[in-house]
Amino acid sequence: MGTSPQDVSVGFIGLGIMGEAMAGHLQAAGHPLHVSTRTKAKADRLLAKGANWHDGPGKLAAASDVVITMVGYPSDVEEVYLGKDGLVPHAKAGAVLIDMTTSSPNLAVRIAAEGAKRGVAVLDAPVSGGDVGAREARLSIMVGGDAAAFERVRTIFGTMGKTIMHQGGPGAGQHTKMANQIVIASTIVGVCEGLAYAKKTGLDPAKVLENIGGGAAGGFQLNVLGARMLKGDFGPGFYVHHFIKDLGIALDEAERHQIPLPGLAQAKGLFEKLAANGGRELGTQGLFTLYAG
Amino acid sequence: MGTSPQDVSVGFIGLGIMGEAMAGHLQAAGHPLHVSTRTKAKADRLLAKGANWHDGPGKLAAASDVVITMVGYPSDVEEVYLGKDGLVPHAKAGAVLIDMTTSSPNLAVRIAAEGAKRGVAVLDAPVSGGDVGAREARLSIMVGGDAAAFERVRTIFGTMGKTIMHQGGPGAGQHTKMANQIVIASTIVGVCEGLAYAKKTGLDPAKVLENIGGGAAGGFQLNVLGARMLKGDFGPGFYVHHFIKDLGIALDEAERHQIPLPGLAQAKGLFEKLAANGGRELGTQGLFTLYAG
Repeated sequence: MGTSPQDVSVGFIGLGIMGEAMAGHLQAAGHPLHVSTRTKAKADRLLAKGANWHDGPGKLAAASDVVITMVGYPSDVEEVYLGKDGLVPHAKAGAVLIDMTTSSPNLAVRIAAEGAKRGVAVLDAPVSGGDVGAREARLSIMVGGDAAAFERVRTIFGTMGKTIMHQGGPGAGQHTKMANQIVIASTIVGVCEGLAYAKKTGLDPAKVLENIGGGAAGGFQLNVLGARMLKGDFGPGFYVHHFIKDLGIALDEAERHQIPLPGLAQAKGLFEKLAANGGRELGTQGLFTLYAG
Repeated sequence: MGTSPQDVSVGFIGLGIMGEAMAGHLQAAGHPLHVSTRTKAKADRLLAKGANWHDGPGKLAAASDVVITMVGYPSDVEEVYLGKDGLVPHAKAGAVLIDMTTSSPNLAVRIAAEGAKRGVAVLDAPVSGGDVGAREARLSIMVGGDAAAFERVRTIFGTMGKTIMHQGGPGAGQHTKMANQIVIASTIVGVCEGLAYAKKTGLDPAKVLENIGGGAAGGFQLNVLGARMLKGDFGPGFYVHHFIKDLGIALDEAERHQIPLPGLAQAKGLFEKLAANGGRELGTQGLFTLYAG
Protein backbone atom coordinates (compact mmCIF):
# COMPACT_ATOMS: atom_id res chain seq x y z
CA MET A 1 0.00 0.00 0.00
CA GLY A 2 1.48 3.38 -0.99
CA THR A 3 1.67 6.35 1.31
CA SER A 4 -0.07 9.11 -0.66
CA PRO A 5 -3.89 9.05 -0.84
CA GLN A 6 -3.78 8.52 -4.62
CA ASP A 7 -2.00 5.22 -4.03
CA VAL A 8 -4.51 3.87 -1.51
CA SER A 9 -7.89 2.92 -2.95
CA VAL A 10 -10.72 2.91 -0.43
CA GLY A 11 -13.95 0.97 -0.69
CA PHE A 12 -16.97 2.25 1.25
CA ILE A 13 -20.14 0.30 1.99
CA GLY A 14 -23.13 1.96 3.64
CA LEU A 15 -23.90 5.47 2.45
CA GLY A 16 -26.39 6.72 5.02
CA ILE A 17 -26.19 10.26 6.39
CA MET A 18 -22.91 9.57 8.18
CA GLY A 19 -21.41 7.15 5.65
CA GLU A 20 -21.85 9.52 2.72
CA ALA A 21 -20.17 12.38 4.59
CA MET A 22 -17.28 10.16 5.67
CA ALA A 23 -16.77 8.71 2.18
CA GLY A 24 -16.88 12.26 0.81
CA HIS A 25 -13.94 13.28 3.01
CA LEU A 26 -11.90 10.32 1.76
CA GLN A 27 -12.70 11.19 -1.85
CA ALA A 28 -11.83 14.87 -1.26
CA ALA A 29 -8.50 13.79 0.27
CA GLY A 30 -7.61 12.11 -3.03
CA HIS A 31 -8.29 8.42 -2.37
CA PRO A 32 -9.67 6.51 -5.38
CA LEU A 33 -13.12 5.69 -4.00
CA HIS A 34 -15.10 2.50 -4.59
CA VAL A 35 -18.68 2.27 -3.40
CA SER A 36 -21.44 -0.24 -3.02
CA THR A 37 -24.65 0.14 -1.11
CA ARG A 38 -28.09 -1.46 -1.01
CA THR A 39 -29.85 1.61 -2.44
CA LYS A 40 -27.77 2.71 -5.44
CA ALA A 41 -29.35 6.21 -5.50
CA LYS A 42 -27.55 6.98 -2.24
CA ALA A 43 -24.25 6.77 -4.16
CA ASP A 44 -25.27 9.28 -6.87
CA ARG A 45 -23.41 12.29 -5.49
CA LEU A 46 -20.19 10.36 -4.92
CA LEU A 47 -20.42 8.66 -8.35
CA ALA A 48 -20.87 12.08 -9.99
CA LYS A 49 -17.55 13.10 -8.42
CA GLY A 50 -15.77 10.05 -9.87
CA ALA A 51 -16.36 7.19 -7.41
CA ASN A 52 -16.50 3.67 -8.88
CA TRP A 53 -19.60 1.54 -8.43
CA HIS A 54 -19.49 -2.18 -7.62
CA ASP A 55 -22.30 -4.69 -7.39
CA GLY A 56 -21.78 -6.09 -3.91
CA PRO A 57 -19.02 -6.37 -1.31
CA GLY A 58 -17.02 -9.08 -3.11
CA LYS A 59 -16.30 -7.02 -6.24
CA LEU A 60 -15.68 -3.90 -4.18
CA ALA A 61 -13.18 -5.74 -1.97
CA ALA A 62 -11.26 -7.02 -4.98
CA ALA A 63 -10.66 -3.39 -6.06
CA SER A 64 -9.83 -1.79 -2.67
CA ASP A 65 -6.72 -1.55 -0.46
CA VAL A 66 -8.82 -0.46 2.49
CA VAL A 67 -12.54 -1.12 2.96
CA ILE A 68 -14.76 0.79 5.36
CA THR A 69 -18.27 -0.29 6.32
CA MET A 70 -20.96 1.78 7.99
CA VAL A 71 -24.11 -0.31 7.89
CA GLY A 72 -27.09 -0.78 10.22
CA TYR A 73 -27.29 -3.90 12.36
CA PRO A 74 -24.86 -6.66 13.41
CA SER A 75 -26.72 -9.00 11.02
CA ASP A 76 -25.79 -6.62 8.16
CA VAL A 77 -22.17 -6.56 9.34
CA GLU A 78 -22.05 -10.35 9.45
CA GLU A 79 -23.45 -10.70 5.93
CA VAL A 80 -21.16 -8.02 4.46
CA TYR A 81 -18.02 -9.51 6.01
CA LEU A 82 -18.64 -13.24 6.19
CA GLY A 83 -21.33 -13.91 3.59
CA LYS A 84 -20.59 -15.82 0.39
CA ASP A 85 -20.12 -12.50 -1.44
CA GLY A 86 -18.50 -10.94 1.64
CA LEU A 87 -15.44 -8.80 2.20
CA VAL A 88 -13.33 -11.35 4.07
CA PRO A 89 -13.46 -14.05 1.38
CA HIS A 90 -12.77 -11.52 -1.41
CA ALA A 91 -10.33 -9.06 0.19
CA LYS A 92 -6.97 -8.38 -1.47
CA ALA A 93 -3.96 -9.84 0.29
CA GLY A 94 -2.74 -7.33 2.87
CA ALA A 95 -5.98 -5.34 2.83
CA VAL A 96 -7.29 -3.61 5.94
CA LEU A 97 -11.04 -3.86 6.53
CA ILE A 98 -12.60 -1.41 8.98
CA ASP A 99 -16.10 -1.77 10.41
CA MET A 100 -17.28 1.61 11.70
CA THR A 101 -20.81 0.40 12.39
CA THR A 102 -21.75 0.24 16.08
CA SER A 103 -22.01 -3.54 16.38
CA SER A 104 -21.34 -6.50 18.63
CA PRO A 105 -17.83 -6.79 20.19
CA ASN A 106 -18.24 -10.53 20.01
CA LEU A 107 -18.93 -10.44 16.27
CA ALA A 108 -15.92 -8.14 15.82
CA VAL A 109 -13.72 -10.77 17.47
CA ARG A 110 -15.15 -13.48 15.19
CA ILE A 111 -14.67 -11.45 12.00
CA ALA A 112 -11.10 -10.48 12.97
CA ALA A 113 -10.30 -14.16 13.50
CA GLU A 114 -11.76 -15.09 10.10
CA GLY A 115 -9.75 -12.27 8.50
CA ALA A 116 -6.55 -13.43 10.20
CA LYS A 117 -6.98 -16.89 8.63
CA ARG A 118 -6.75 -15.18 5.22
CA GLY A 119 -4.04 -12.61 6.10
CA VAL A 120 -6.56 -9.77 6.15
CA ALA A 121 -6.60 -7.32 9.07
CA VAL A 122 -10.05 -6.35 10.31
CA LEU A 123 -10.48 -3.42 12.69
CA ASP A 124 -13.61 -2.45 14.62
CA ALA A 125 -13.81 1.33 14.77
CA PRO A 126 -17.19 2.72 15.76
CA VAL A 127 -17.60 6.46 16.10
CA SER A 128 -19.42 9.06 18.09
CA GLY A 129 -20.24 12.59 17.09
CA GLY A 130 -23.32 12.04 14.92
CA ASP A 131 -24.14 13.61 11.57
CA VAL A 132 -22.50 16.91 12.51
CA GLY A 133 -19.26 15.19 13.58
CA ALA A 134 -19.25 13.20 10.32
CA ARG A 135 -19.84 16.32 8.19
CA GLU A 136 -17.16 18.32 9.97
CA ALA A 137 -14.67 15.41 10.16
CA ARG A 138 -14.64 15.75 13.95
CA LEU A 139 -15.72 12.23 14.93
CA SER A 140 -14.37 10.40 17.95
CA ILE A 141 -13.13 7.05 16.65
CA MET A 142 -12.65 4.09 19.02
CA VAL A 143 -10.52 1.40 17.51
CA GLY A 144 -10.00 -2.26 18.30
CA GLY A 145 -7.81 -4.78 16.50
CA ASP A 146 -4.25 -5.29 15.38
CA ALA A 147 -2.08 -2.32 16.45
CA ALA A 148 0.13 -2.43 13.34
CA ALA A 149 -2.93 -2.37 11.07
CA PHE A 150 -4.25 0.59 13.09
CA GLU A 151 -1.01 2.49 12.42
CA ARG A 152 -1.24 1.73 8.70
CA VAL A 153 -4.68 3.38 8.42
CA ARG A 154 -4.26 6.12 11.02
CA THR A 155 -4.17 8.89 8.39
CA ILE A 156 -7.39 7.52 6.89
CA PHE A 157 -9.06 7.81 10.31
CA GLY A 158 -7.61 11.32 10.55
CA THR A 159 -9.45 12.27 7.36
CA MET A 160 -12.78 11.56 9.12
CA GLY A 161 -12.20 12.22 12.81
CA LYS A 162 -10.41 14.09 15.52
CA THR A 163 -10.10 12.00 18.72
CA ILE A 164 -8.75 8.71 17.40
CA MET A 165 -7.61 6.08 19.87
CA HIS A 166 -6.54 2.46 19.68
CA GLN A 167 -8.25 0.82 22.65
CA GLY A 168 -6.97 -2.74 22.36
CA GLY A 169 -7.45 -5.97 20.43
CA PRO A 170 -10.43 -7.02 18.31
CA GLY A 171 -13.72 -5.88 19.87
CA ALA A 172 -12.10 -3.17 22.03
CA GLY A 173 -13.45 -0.41 19.79
CA GLN A 174 -16.97 -1.81 20.10
CA HIS A 175 -16.59 -2.21 23.88
CA THR A 176 -15.49 1.44 24.13
CA LYS A 177 -18.53 2.52 22.14
CA MET A 178 -20.73 0.42 24.43
CA ALA A 179 -19.25 2.25 27.46
CA ASN A 180 -20.16 5.51 25.72
CA GLN A 181 -23.74 4.38 25.05
CA ILE A 182 -24.13 3.09 28.62
CA VAL A 183 -23.14 6.51 30.04
CA ILE A 184 -25.55 8.23 27.65
CA ALA A 185 -28.47 5.87 28.34
CA SER A 186 -28.91 6.81 32.00
CA THR A 187 -27.81 10.41 31.47
CA ILE A 188 -30.64 11.03 29.03
CA VAL A 189 -33.10 9.48 31.49
CA GLY A 190 -31.85 11.96 34.12
CA VAL A 191 -32.19 14.89 31.73
CA CYS A 192 -35.75 13.90 30.77
CA GLU A 193 -36.74 13.42 34.41
CA GLY A 194 -35.19 16.67 35.64
CA LEU A 195 -36.80 18.74 32.90
CA ALA A 196 -40.15 16.94 33.23
CA TYR A 197 -40.07 17.64 36.97
CA ALA A 198 -39.32 21.33 36.28
CA LYS A 199 -42.21 21.55 33.83
CA LYS A 200 -44.76 19.76 35.98
CA THR A 201 -43.92 21.64 39.18
CA GLY A 202 -44.75 24.87 37.35
CA LEU A 203 -41.28 26.22 36.67
CA ASP A 204 -40.09 27.61 33.34
CA PRO A 205 -37.88 24.69 32.21
CA ALA A 206 -35.80 26.89 29.90
CA LYS A 207 -34.89 29.12 32.85
CA VAL A 208 -34.11 26.05 34.92
CA LEU A 209 -31.82 24.76 32.16
CA GLU A 210 -30.02 28.11 32.13
CA ASN A 211 -29.58 28.02 35.92
CA ILE A 212 -28.29 24.44 36.16
CA GLY A 213 -26.62 23.86 32.77
CA GLY A 214 -23.28 25.35 33.79
CA GLY A 215 -22.97 23.30 37.00
CA ALA A 216 -22.60 19.70 38.07
CA ALA A 217 -25.63 18.62 36.00
CA GLY A 218 -24.22 20.12 32.81
CA GLY A 219 -23.06 18.21 29.76
CA PHE A 220 -23.90 17.48 26.13
CA GLN A 221 -27.11 15.61 26.91
CA LEU A 222 -28.57 18.38 29.13
CA ASN A 223 -27.24 21.40 27.30
CA VAL A 224 -27.75 20.26 23.71
CA LEU A 225 -30.45 17.55 23.73
CA GLY A 226 -32.28 19.05 26.75
CA ALA A 227 -32.64 22.33 24.84
CA ARG A 228 -34.10 20.41 21.87
CA MET A 229 -36.59 18.66 24.18
CA LEU A 230 -37.84 22.00 25.46
CA LYS A 231 -38.27 23.33 21.90
CA GLY A 232 -40.26 20.21 20.99
CA ASP A 233 -37.59 19.31 18.41
CA PHE A 234 -37.59 15.50 18.43
CA GLY A 235 -36.07 14.96 14.97
CA PRO A 236 -33.37 12.32 14.65
CA GLY A 237 -29.77 13.26 15.36
CA PHE A 238 -29.55 9.63 16.41
CA TYR A 239 -32.50 7.26 15.85
CA VAL A 240 -34.27 5.66 18.80
CA HIS A 241 -34.29 2.27 17.03
CA HIS A 242 -30.52 2.40 16.52
CA PHE A 243 -30.03 3.34 20.17
CA ILE A 244 -32.17 0.38 21.26
CA LYS A 245 -30.00 -1.88 19.09
CA ASP A 246 -26.87 -0.49 20.79
CA LEU A 247 -28.30 -0.87 24.29
CA GLY A 248 -29.31 -4.44 23.50
CA ILE A 249 -25.74 -5.27 22.48
CA ALA A 250 -24.41 -3.56 25.62
CA LEU A 251 -26.79 -5.47 27.85
CA ASP A 252 -25.92 -8.80 26.20
CA GLU A 253 -22.22 -8.12 26.68
CA ALA A 254 -22.75 -7.00 30.28
CA GLU A 255 -24.58 -10.27 30.98
CA ARG A 256 -21.86 -12.29 29.25
CA HIS A 257 -19.27 -10.56 31.49
CA GLN A 258 -21.55 -10.77 34.57
CA ILE A 259 -21.71 -7.01 35.12
CA PRO A 260 -25.10 -6.03 36.62
CA LEU A 261 -26.13 -2.69 35.06
CA PRO A 262 -29.58 -1.79 36.43
CA GLY A 263 -29.52 1.75 35.02
CA LEU A 264 -28.86 0.45 31.52
CA ALA A 265 -31.58 -2.19 31.80
CA GLN A 266 -34.12 0.39 32.92
CA ALA A 267 -33.12 2.92 30.25
CA LYS A 268 -33.45 0.26 27.55
CA GLY A 269 -36.95 -0.56 28.79
CA LEU A 270 -37.94 3.11 28.63
CA PHE A 271 -36.65 3.47 25.06
CA GLU A 272 -38.50 0.29 24.07
CA LYS A 273 -41.68 1.76 25.53
CA LEU A 274 -41.07 4.90 23.49
CA ALA A 275 -40.58 2.82 20.32
CA ALA A 276 -43.76 0.85 21.03
CA ASN A 277 -45.60 4.19 21.35
CA GLY A 278 -44.57 5.20 17.82
CA GLY A 279 -41.20 6.80 18.64
CA ARG A 280 -38.88 4.48 16.65
CA GLU A 281 -37.89 7.15 14.15
CA LEU A 282 -37.48 9.98 16.65
CA GLY A 283 -34.12 11.18 17.90
CA THR A 284 -33.06 9.91 21.32
CA GLN A 285 -34.22 13.20 22.94
CA GLY A 286 -37.74 11.99 22.02
CA LEU A 287 -37.65 10.06 25.30
CA PHE A 288 -38.91 13.32 26.82
CA THR A 289 -42.33 12.64 25.23
CA LEU A 290 -42.76 9.65 27.57
CA TYR A 291 -42.48 11.99 30.55
CA ALA A 292 -44.07 15.19 29.31
CA GLY A 293 -45.64 14.33 25.95
CA MET B 1 -32.06 48.94 54.68
CA GLY B 2 -29.19 51.04 53.27
CA THR B 3 -27.46 50.42 49.98
CA SER B 4 -23.79 50.11 50.94
CA PRO B 5 -22.62 46.86 52.57
CA GLN B 6 -21.72 48.70 55.80
CA ASP B 7 -25.38 49.64 56.18
CA VAL B 8 -26.73 46.10 55.76
CA SER B 9 -26.01 43.73 58.62
CA VAL B 10 -26.10 40.05 57.69
CA GLY B 11 -26.73 37.15 60.02
CA PHE B 12 -25.41 33.72 59.03
CA ILE B 13 -26.46 30.39 60.54
CA GLY B 14 -24.70 27.16 59.58
CA LEU B 15 -20.94 27.40 59.20
CA GLY B 16 -20.06 24.14 57.50
CA ILE B 17 -17.50 24.02 54.70
CA MET B 18 -19.76 25.95 52.34
CA GLY B 19 -21.40 28.24 54.91
CA GLU B 20 -18.11 29.47 56.32
CA ALA B 21 -16.79 30.35 52.86
CA MET B 22 -20.01 32.14 51.93
CA ALA B 23 -20.14 34.11 55.20
CA GLY B 24 -16.49 35.02 54.70
CA HIS B 25 -17.29 36.64 51.33
CA LEU B 26 -20.04 38.72 52.95
CA GLN B 27 -17.71 39.82 55.72
CA ALA B 28 -14.96 40.67 53.22
CA ALA B 29 -17.46 42.76 51.23
CA GLY B 30 -17.99 44.93 54.32
CA HIS B 31 -21.27 43.67 55.78
CA PRO B 32 -21.43 43.68 59.59
CA LEU B 33 -21.62 39.92 60.18
CA HIS B 34 -23.61 38.15 62.88
CA VAL B 35 -23.17 34.43 63.39
CA SER B 36 -24.69 31.59 65.31
CA THR B 37 -24.08 27.91 64.82
CA ARG B 38 -24.48 24.69 66.77
CA THR B 39 -20.74 24.14 67.16
CA LYS B 40 -19.29 27.48 68.26
CA ALA B 41 -15.72 26.49 67.27
CA LYS B 42 -16.80 26.60 63.63
CA ALA B 43 -17.26 30.37 64.01
CA ASP B 44 -13.76 31.01 65.38
CA ARG B 45 -12.17 32.29 62.19
CA LEU B 46 -15.05 34.64 61.41
CA LEU B 47 -15.22 35.90 65.02
CA ALA B 48 -11.47 36.62 64.91
CA LYS B 49 -12.16 38.89 61.94
CA GLY B 50 -14.82 40.81 63.83
CA ALA B 51 -18.06 38.87 63.43
CA ASN B 52 -20.59 39.09 66.29
CA TRP B 53 -21.67 35.94 68.10
CA HIS B 54 -25.28 35.29 69.15
CA ASP B 55 -26.71 32.47 71.20
CA GLY B 56 -29.38 31.12 68.89
CA PRO B 57 -31.42 32.29 65.89
CA GLY B 58 -33.75 34.62 67.81
CA LYS B 59 -31.00 36.95 69.09
CA LEU B 60 -29.20 36.80 65.75
CA ALA B 61 -32.39 37.75 63.91
CA ALA B 62 -32.98 40.74 66.16
CA ALA B 63 -29.57 42.14 65.11
CA SER B 64 -29.67 41.44 61.34
CA ASP B 65 -31.21 43.12 58.30
CA VAL B 66 -30.71 39.99 56.23
CA VAL B 67 -30.34 36.44 57.58
CA ILE B 68 -28.87 33.54 55.59
CA THR B 69 -29.14 29.92 56.66
CA MET B 70 -27.12 26.96 55.36
CA VAL B 71 -27.98 24.05 57.63
CA GLY B 72 -28.37 20.30 57.11
CA TYR B 73 -31.81 18.78 56.92
CA PRO B 74 -35.36 20.13 56.46
CA SER B 75 -35.99 19.41 60.15
CA ASP B 76 -33.13 21.81 60.99
CA VAL B 77 -34.59 24.43 58.65
CA GLU B 78 -38.01 24.11 60.27
CA GLU B 79 -36.59 24.52 63.77
CA VAL B 80 -34.36 27.48 62.85
CA TYR B 81 -37.21 29.36 61.10
CA LEU B 82 -40.37 28.36 62.92
CA GLY B 83 -39.17 27.18 66.35
CA LYS B 84 -39.89 29.16 69.51
CA ASP B 85 -36.43 30.76 69.25
CA GLY B 86 -36.71 30.87 65.45
CA LEU B 87 -35.95 33.50 62.85
CA VAL B 88 -39.51 34.22 61.75
CA PRO B 89 -40.85 35.11 65.23
CA HIS B 90 -37.80 37.28 65.99
CA ALA B 91 -36.96 38.90 62.64
CA LYS B 92 -36.76 42.68 62.38
CA ALA B 93 -39.62 44.33 60.51
CA GLY B 94 -38.72 44.45 56.82
CA ALA B 95 -35.99 41.83 57.14
CA VAL B 96 -35.21 39.38 54.35
CA LEU B 97 -34.53 35.78 55.42
CA ILE B 98 -32.80 33.50 52.91
CA ASP B 99 -32.60 29.73 53.27
CA MET B 100 -29.76 28.43 51.11
CA THR B 101 -30.02 24.87 52.45
CA THR B 102 -31.25 22.29 49.93
CA SER B 103 -34.58 21.55 51.55
CA SER B 104 -38.22 20.76 50.88
CA PRO B 105 -40.10 23.07 48.45
CA ASN B 106 -43.21 22.42 50.48
CA LEU B 107 -41.55 23.60 53.69
CA ALA B 108 -40.26 26.69 51.85
CA VAL B 109 -43.84 27.57 50.91
CA ARG B 110 -44.95 27.13 54.52
CA ILE B 111 -42.13 29.26 55.96
CA ALA B 112 -42.71 32.02 53.39
CA ALA B 113 -46.39 32.11 54.37
CA GLU B 114 -45.50 32.35 58.08
CA GLY B 115 -43.06 35.14 57.28
CA ALA B 116 -45.66 37.03 55.25
CA LYS B 117 -47.99 37.06 58.26
CA ARG B 118 -45.30 39.04 60.12
CA GLY B 119 -44.16 41.24 57.20
CA VAL B 120 -40.93 39.31 56.78
CA ALA B 121 -39.84 38.13 53.32
CA VAL B 122 -38.41 34.60 53.18
CA LEU B 123 -36.58 33.41 50.08
CA ASP B 124 -35.51 29.85 49.28
CA ALA B 125 -32.17 29.98 47.46
CA PRO B 126 -30.31 26.67 47.30
CA VAL B 127 -27.03 26.55 45.43
CA SER B 128 -24.94 24.27 43.31
CA GLY B 129 -21.22 24.38 42.77
CA GLY B 130 -19.97 22.66 45.93
CA ASP B 131 -17.11 23.69 48.19
CA VAL B 132 -15.05 25.00 45.28
CA GLY B 133 -17.92 27.16 44.02
CA ALA B 134 -18.46 28.52 47.53
CA ARG B 135 -14.77 29.32 48.00
CA GLU B 136 -14.48 31.03 44.62
CA ALA B 137 -17.85 32.82 44.89
CA ARG B 138 -18.96 31.07 41.70
CA LEU B 139 -22.10 29.32 42.97
CA SER B 140 -25.23 28.89 40.89
CA ILE B 141 -28.06 30.26 43.04
CA MET B 142 -31.68 29.27 42.34
CA VAL B 143 -34.13 31.57 44.00
CA GLY B 144 -37.81 31.30 44.88
CA GLY B 145 -40.00 33.81 46.67
CA ASP B 146 -41.12 37.41 46.44
CA ALA B 147 -39.55 39.10 43.39
CA ALA B 148 -39.15 42.48 45.09
CA ALA B 149 -37.34 40.89 48.05
CA PHE B 150 -35.09 39.08 45.55
CA GLU B 151 -34.16 42.42 43.96
CA ARG B 152 -33.35 43.89 47.38
CA VAL B 153 -30.79 41.19 48.12
CA ARG B 154 -29.46 40.60 44.61
CA THR B 155 -26.09 42.21 45.39
CA ILE B 156 -25.77 39.96 48.44
CA PHE B 157 -26.28 36.91 46.21
CA GLY B 158 -23.73 38.41 43.82
CA THR B 159 -21.14 38.39 46.63
CA MET B 160 -21.44 34.58 46.82
CA GLY B 161 -22.39 33.40 43.35
CA LYS B 162 -22.30 33.86 39.61
CA THR B 163 -25.41 32.43 37.93
CA ILE B 164 -28.21 33.91 40.01
CA MET B 165 -31.79 33.48 38.83
CA HIS B 166 -35.21 34.16 40.28
CA GLN B 167 -37.23 31.08 39.32
CA GLY B 168 -40.65 31.97 40.72
CA GLY B 169 -42.62 32.17 43.96
CA PRO B 170 -41.83 30.43 47.27
CA GLY B 171 -40.43 26.93 46.72
CA ALA B 172 -39.34 27.59 43.12
CA GLY B 173 -35.68 27.74 44.13
CA GLN B 174 -35.97 24.38 45.86
CA HIS B 175 -37.83 22.88 42.90
CA THR B 176 -35.06 24.09 40.58
CA LYS B 177 -32.46 22.47 42.81
CA MET B 178 -34.48 19.25 42.79
CA ALA B 179 -34.46 19.30 38.96
CA ASN B 180 -30.67 19.66 39.16
CA GLN B 181 -30.35 16.70 41.55
CA ILE B 182 -32.69 14.56 39.45
CA VAL B 183 -30.52 15.10 36.35
CA ILE B 184 -27.39 14.29 38.36
CA ALA B 185 -28.84 11.16 40.00
CA SER B 186 -29.26 9.15 36.81
CA THR B 187 -26.24 10.72 35.13
CA ILE B 188 -23.93 9.45 37.85
CA VAL B 189 -25.48 5.98 37.52
CA GLY B 190 -24.67 6.08 33.80
CA VAL B 191 -21.10 7.21 34.46
CA CYS B 192 -20.52 4.43 37.01
CA GLU B 193 -22.02 1.80 34.73
CA GLY B 194 -20.11 2.91 31.61
CA LEU B 195 -16.77 2.98 33.43
CA ALA B 196 -17.46 -0.28 35.27
CA TYR B 197 -18.28 -1.90 31.92
CA ALA B 198 -15.03 -0.56 30.46
CA LYS B 199 -13.03 -1.91 33.39
CA LYS B 200 -14.65 -5.33 33.47
CA THR B 201 -14.44 -5.92 29.72
CA GLY B 202 -10.68 -5.48 29.96
CA LEU B 203 -10.29 -1.97 28.57
CA ASP B 204 -8.17 0.78 30.12
CA PRO B 205 -10.97 2.95 31.60
CA ALA B 206 -8.79 6.09 31.61
CA LYS B 207 -8.23 5.73 27.87
CA VAL B 208 -11.94 5.13 27.37
CA LEU B 209 -12.72 8.30 29.33
CA GLU B 210 -10.32 10.24 27.11
CA ASN B 211 -11.94 8.82 23.97
CA ILE B 212 -15.56 9.48 24.97
CA GLY B 213 -15.30 12.50 27.31
CA GLY B 214 -15.38 15.09 24.53
CA GLY B 215 -18.46 13.65 22.83
CA ALA B 216 -22.14 13.10 23.53
CA ALA B 217 -21.41 11.32 26.82
CA GLY B 218 -19.30 14.22 28.13
CA GLY B 219 -20.18 16.49 31.04
CA PHE B 220 -19.21 17.37 34.60
CA GLN B 221 -20.17 13.99 36.06
CA LEU B 222 -18.15 11.95 33.53
CA ASN B 223 -15.21 14.27 33.07
CA VAL B 224 -14.72 15.40 36.69
CA LEU B 225 -16.28 12.74 38.93
CA GLY B 226 -15.55 9.89 36.50
CA ALA B 227 -11.87 10.79 36.61
CA ARG B 228 -11.97 10.71 40.44
CA MET B 229 -13.63 7.27 40.35
CA LEU B 230 -10.81 5.90 38.23
CA LYS B 231 -8.18 7.33 40.60
CA GLY B 232 -9.96 5.71 43.55
CA ASP B 233 -10.59 9.18 45.03
CA PHE B 234 -13.94 8.79 46.79
CA GLY B 235 -13.57 11.69 49.23
CA PRO B 236 -16.58 13.94 49.73
CA GLY B 237 -17.10 16.84 47.37
CA PHE B 238 -20.75 16.20 48.16
CA TYR B 239 -21.72 13.66 50.84
CA VAL B 240 -23.70 10.54 49.91
CA HIS B 241 -26.01 11.03 52.92
CA HIS B 242 -26.85 14.60 51.85
CA PHE B 243 -27.53 13.40 48.32
CA ILE B 244 -29.90 10.71 49.62
CA LYS B 245 -31.72 13.42 51.61
CA ASP B 246 -32.08 15.50 48.42
CA LEU B 247 -33.29 12.54 46.34
CA GLY B 248 -35.82 11.68 49.03
CA ILE B 249 -37.25 15.20 48.89
CA ALA B 250 -37.31 15.07 45.09
CA LEU B 251 -39.10 11.72 45.09
CA ASP B 252 -41.68 12.93 47.65
CA GLU B 253 -42.37 16.02 45.56
CA ALA B 254 -42.58 13.97 42.36
CA GLU B 255 -45.16 11.72 44.00
CA ARG B 256 -47.10 14.71 45.31
CA HIS B 257 -47.19 16.11 41.74
CA GLN B 258 -47.85 12.65 40.23
CA ILE B 259 -44.71 12.62 38.09
CA PRO B 260 -43.39 9.05 37.71
CA LEU B 261 -39.58 9.20 37.77
CA PRO B 262 -38.27 5.63 37.55
CA GLY B 263 -34.65 6.68 37.00
CA LEU B 264 -34.67 8.78 40.16
CA ALA B 265 -36.28 6.01 42.21
CA GLN B 266 -33.68 3.51 41.05
CA ALA B 267 -30.75 5.89 41.61
CA LYS B 268 -31.97 6.61 45.15
CA GLY B 269 -32.10 2.87 45.85
CA LEU B 270 -28.52 2.44 44.63
CA PHE B 271 -27.26 5.30 46.83
CA GLU B 272 -29.13 3.82 49.80
CA LYS B 273 -27.44 0.51 49.14
CA LEU B 274 -24.09 2.31 49.06
CA ALA B 275 -24.87 4.03 52.38
CA ALA B 276 -25.91 0.70 53.95
CA ASN B 277 -22.56 -0.73 52.80
CA GLY B 278 -20.66 1.94 54.76
CA GLY B 279 -20.57 4.66 52.09
CA ARG B 280 -22.55 7.41 53.90
CA GLU B 281 -19.58 9.72 54.26
CA LEU B 282 -18.15 9.17 50.79
CA GLY B 283 -18.58 11.66 47.96
CA THR B 284 -21.29 10.85 45.42
CA GLN B 285 -18.67 9.39 43.03
CA GLY B 286 -18.33 6.63 45.65
CA LEU B 287 -21.28 4.96 43.90
CA PHE B 288 -18.61 3.46 41.63
CA THR B 289 -17.59 1.15 44.50
CA LEU B 290 -20.96 -0.64 44.20
CA TYR B 291 -20.10 -1.56 40.61
CA ALA B 292 -16.36 -2.04 40.68
CA GLY B 293 -15.35 -1.92 44.33
